Amino acid sequence: MPNTIDTTFHVRYAETDQMGVVHHAAYIVWLEEGRSAWMRANGTSYADFEKDGFVLAVSEVNIRYRQAAFYDQRVTIRCWMEEVRSRQVTFCYNVIDTESDAVLAQAFTKLICLNLKKQVSPIPQKWRQLLSQQ
Amino acid sequence: MPNTIDTTFHVRYAETDQMGVVHHAAYIVWLEEGRSAWMRANGTSYADFEKDGFVLAVSEVNIRYRQAAFYDQRVTIRCWMEEVRSRQVTFCYNVIDTESDAVLAQAFTKLICLNLKKQVSPIPQKWRQLLSQQ
Amino acid sequence: MPNTIDTTFHVRYAETDQMGVVHHAAYIVWLEEGRSAWMRANGTSYADFEKDGFVLAVSEVNIRYRQAAFYDQRVTIRCWMEEVRSRQVTFCYNVIDTESDAVLAQAFTKLICLNLKKQVSPIPQKWRQLLSQQ
Amino acid sequence: MPNTIDTTFHVRYAETDQMGVVHHAAYIVWLEEGRSAWMRANGTSYADFEKDGFVLAVSEVNIRYRQAAFYDQRVTIRCWMEEVRSRQVTFCYNVIDTESDAVLAQAFTKLICLNLKKQVSPIPQKWRQLLSQQ
Repeated sequence: MPNTIDTTFHVRYAETDQMGVVHHAAYIVWLEEGRSAWMRANGTSYADFEKDGFVLAVSEVNIRYRQAAFYDQRVTIRCWMEEVRSRQVTFCYNVIDTESDAVLAQAFTKLICLNLKKQVSPIPQKWRQLLSQQ
Repeated sequence: MPNTIDTTFHVRYAETDQMGVVHHAAYIVWLEEGRSAWMRANGTSYADFEKDGFVLAVSEVNIRYRQAAFYDQRVTIRCWMEEVRSRQVTFCYNVIDTESDAVLAQAFTKLICLNLKKQVSPIPQKWRQLLSQQ
Repeated sequence: MPNTIDTTFHVRYAETDQMGVVHHAAYIVWLEEGRSAWMRANGTSYADFEKDGFVLAVSEVNIRYRQAAFYDQRVTIRCWMEEVRSRQVTFCYNVIDTESDAVLAQAFTKLICLNLKKQVSPIPQKWRQLLSQQ
Repeated sequence: MPNTIDTTFHVRYAETDQMGVVHHAAYIVWLEEGRSAWMRANGTSYADFEKDGFVLAVSEVNIRYRQAAFYDQRVTIRCWMEEVRSRQVTFCYNVIDTESDAVLAQAFTKLICLNLKKQVSPIPQKWRQLLSQQ
């Protein structure tokens, strides 16, 4: 399976702020949508991870903004798995202007595996394989 | 207990859009916060309603926008219970500029009671009393 | 040109709430994205409307929720122009489960035309034609 | 003037997600509200900064999540200015459970000064003094 998955969509009006550009918090939601698409591209869904009784809770976000994004622009979230550890995974991202391929932002997120009691837990073996198979 | 409860806060920057005013969807979140404050003012919390195994799901929203709201402005959500029925409640709202008391928007929301299986259910007697005691 | 335009996307995780379903305010953002797609399908962009010095400000939203929507579900916003008046347009919407075609919500929004001074203004002739040509 | 400013509010229902806790992107909006309150506590408003023809655009966000936050919980954003440079400021934050004073998240944001043409620009002298006077 390819490790790097692109997801493309139009910027929504609600994602802009009075600076006339996309609000910085909207990118955090886009990163998550990039992860969702990454899971779908690997033949599964993060929804199934939760159905198995686990969650991947975000433990750290780092994002650097390079250029502004604008309403109606097509943006691409380029997402790849950087590291799979026993209880934690790290995804990396480039947020890209679809037309020019210019990088608008670069980010990583760390997520830890929690069980139903919200305790830190090893990622189930089946999922660890799926997440690291690329 | 008074039926009409005011909640006041500053407009957040993230709630604006590129028109330079508050995005219309942000008001919907404000109405909900008005309902939350209404519950707190009645000595309880909507969180307790969910702990009892029920949810109040929004079944209809109607909102008319009169004037724009701006970043950093203080706004007040004036919320009152309009009607309590067996399985449904209706809240009404005025969104107000705190300083001038001008009405920025008027709204109502209908909410239906669902049980844990997400089936429409009568509002539990204890809660029906609390909701209609004003 | 067809008047009814469908826009399809996956529900984002951030759009859910602790009821386990999509938060009702997220639909309001979806309606707007439906309008954006409607404009794009007509060969233009709402961004160009603003570049011409006008905005379409939402003056009323009404939405009735029929069924819940869930994370990762594919939803379709079916949007059509209901009425074009001198200073106001009305869009109607069905929010649909893409797979089953079940209607999740029905809505309309009224939008009024404002000029750069934020005064109510007739919709420019060029735009009125475009909006009513279907 | 004190450099560290606390802002306290209730968690909104819309800020939760289907994990039953506050969605990680909501914290980013809270940090911004902490900055807004910091400006207000210093006798001004970020709105005035924009009226003077400049914006502070977020160039980097880093946040580490320690504990979950829940609907209706009172949270406090503890915000302080970490560094004022010619064209950039760095704010730091603790997100705190108001009742127990437990730290829920730790963050910093870097913001760069842009002029009306969206070019990187020195922070105006008047504002640089205000931002660094603590």
